[in-house]
Amino acid sequence: MKIEQVDFFYYAMPEVTTEADGSQDVLLVRAAGGGHVGYGECEAAPLPTIAAFVCPMSHGVCRPVGASVLGERLDGPDDIRRMAQAVAYDSMDLLQAAHCWSGVEMALWDLLGKARQAPAWSLLGHARSLPRTPYASQLFGDTPQQTLDFGRAQRAAGFRAVKFGWGPIGRFGEAVDRDHFVAAREGIGEDGVLLVDVGQIYGEDVEAAARRLPALEQARAHWLEEPFHGHSYESYGALAGRSRVRLAGGEAAHNVFMAKHLIDYGKIGFVQIDCGRIGGLGPARAVADHARARGVTYVNHTFTSHLALSASLQPYAGFEECEICEYPVKPKPVATAFCGTPLAPGAEGAVRAPERPGLGVDVDLAAARPYLLDIEIRVGGRRLYATPVD
Amino acid sequence: MKIEQVDFFYYAMPEVTTEADGSQDVLLVRAAGGGHVGYGECEAAPLPTIAAFVCPMSHGVCRPVGASVLGERLDGPDDIRRMAQAVAYDSMDLLQAAHCWSGVEMALWDLLGKARQAPAWSLLGHARSLPRTPYASQLFGDTPQQTLDFGRAQRAAGFRAVKFGWGPIGRFGEAVDRDHFVAAREGIGEDGVLLVDVGQIYGEDVEAAARRLPALEQARAHWLEEPFHGHSYESYGALAGRSRVRLAGGEAAHNVFMAKHLIDYGKIGFVQIDCGRIGGLGPARAVADHARARGVTYVNHTFTSHLALSASLQPYAGFEECEICEYPVKPKPVATAFCGTPLAPGAEGAVRAPERPGLGVDVDLAAARPYLLDIEIRVGGRRLYATPVD
Repeated sequence: MKIEQVDFFYYAMPEVTTEADGSQDVLLVRAAGGGHVGYGECEAAPLPTIAAFVCPMSHGVCRPVGASVLGERLDGPDDIRRMAQAVAYDSMDLLQAAHCWSGVEMALWDLLGKARQAPAWSLLGHARSLPRTPYASQLFGDTPQQTLDFGRAQRAAGFRAVKFGWGPIGRFGEAVDRDHFVAAREGIGEDGVLLVDVGQIYGEDVEAAARRLPALEQARAHWLEEPFHGHSYESYGALAGRSRVRLAGGEAAHNVFMAKHLIDYGKIGFVQIDCGRIGGLGPARAVADHARARGVTYVNHTFTSHLALSASLQPYAGFEECEICEYPVKPKPVATAFCGTPLAPGAEGAVRAPERPGLGVDVDLAAARPYLLDIEIRVGGRRLYATPVD
Repeated sequence: MKIEQVDFFYYAMPEVTTEADGSQDVLLVRAAGGGHVGYGECEAAPLPTIAAFVCPMSHGVCRPVGASVLGERLDGPDDIRRMAQAVAYDSMDLLQAAHCWSGVEMALWDLLGKARQAPAWSLLGHARSLPRTPYASQLFGDTPQQTLDFGRAQRAAGFRAVKFGWGPIGRFGEAVDRDHFVAAREGIGEDGVLLVDVGQIYGEDVEAAARRLPALEQARAHWLEEPFHGHSYESYGALAGRSRVRLAGGEAAHNVFMAKHLIDYGKIGFVQIDCGRIGGLGPARAVADHARARGVTYVNHTFTSHLALSASLQPYAGFEECEICEYPVKPKPVATAFCGTPLAPGAEGAVRAPERPGLGVDVDLAAARPYLLDIEIRVGGRRLYATPVD
């Protein structure tokens, strides 16, 4: 088939706050061709991302993403890889291109899967979709008591594994951080899997992060996620091995190289890939292969809708050694509105990439309409983008 | 002073082609405060870059660049560094932010320099601005004969050092590449300094690049620039040391980490920094210091206007070991129109960062008006950006 049309829908909560909650807006991508429709989602600032698809060309290697996609043939996975290479080269000087292409690439796997009646994970080369233990992903509380309550609530909701992230950590000294780690452990119970995400708060300060290691060990944290700037491989490498708490990172990777470098130079134990940033499912699968070869555990990164959740599960669907998956438990209504078929944990509490064609998530644009933002971009008298009619 | 206003002007040639010529459009930044005005330039796709400044916030670490700049105090270099940190953290999930901030940061040094009556290089800690031998930077010809002619023309124009880039190299086999290298050497003469830029054409293919080394040695190329993808440190590292032709790279760096990694992991001999991408003059100065400590030569990267050229010369203005500088010789009219005071080579054929306040380049908006594109961005009924009145 030919890729006939690609549309972007920008949905947002009526009020967006400075909370580190990425589910406050959504950039949905719809790709159409051959009588089928596929959906994807960019984990990105919507307006610059739309601009990256429609902008005028600046020169030969600063072309809009749309130039590598619209009108192209899509008959198999190799076509998606070909377009990925075209974007990487022809848009090499357009920084936002990676985030933009990520959602488009996802939509193309969904489209191809629907045309072929095959799940995306099978098109990616996996023989099956294995069950994952979902870890409830949420922010730390403002106070240790709130963190404790959040942990208890997730445990009561049936989650054995719980991740706490961001919030007050790193901002009020070691004692406050320790109290939150202790509260988190108490909240989820002695046999729970505790994951801690500190959102790059220590920058490049290895010693500041290292001072938290005893408390993290005491709380038996399964991993310490993103202690540093995503590019500071030296800091990761220096902290790794200083305790039995292994490091996790990779969500910032906007290409395969970055994720590989975090593994090879940063010595992380878990690599977390967001398909909405790294360039979609194909690059994520390449990272999963590299991680496996290095004895590093691949984990999905996702914090918005169940469409993004499904996408995030595809690249490592058949890998037995990867037992857990991130599972957003408190998404804002804008991130749940358009997903007609949420990926609820099954009877044994497990989640898996759907057996249905493509990403296997029905999208209900009408239900999301209250959140749709009306956008218009005009350049030199020409309208380059207007919110499409759904 | 307080930063009262930041404006973006998007200029473009009437027709923009797929030629690898970055001077076909310009994104000029104007920052105003305390009765002064400063100018900078983003080396970036203009539309997504403007969007990165004005877009709605997505969450706490996906804020528009404008949120870290507008209304802020600017009383000294530390204020610029503080804003840089704010952008890096609060816009960490906005990929285009680095390219956007680059031009703004540049404009803030210009503004601060004008307010203090000091050149930007002195505010950056340099004691003086040393003369540089400009190398004429141009594309390879379509044919070896054209490459030969280009070389002769630059030599006749007084340039002893000439860089040839992109074009046919890597696209038609080793023999064609060799013919161009030989022609380039012949064109600039036996005593000329020959620089070769192949624009990432070999991707990650170390052997493909290695097969060109004998011809590059024979042509006595001073460096081989960007043989690989900007993130492929492994490929750079594998090629470095395989001949006496040292590697050059770094223009794609959009933060200090990337440039350091290309030095430390990629073993390049020359690091080329574009202030319009790496986050402006401050990060570029940090790279220059790192390069010096590692015995690597810092070189500016610039291919557009003389405002960008001046900016590119500031970070290493006082370093004696850096003898040459890139000097665009065939910019499109849009890139020359607004620069009232071009940096022409002096009597000895040398170029240097101006002794005048800030970046030392007068900007003439009226002269550039024929190239100004009329842009409008509306979100949710609100006009977030419209081309400002100059």
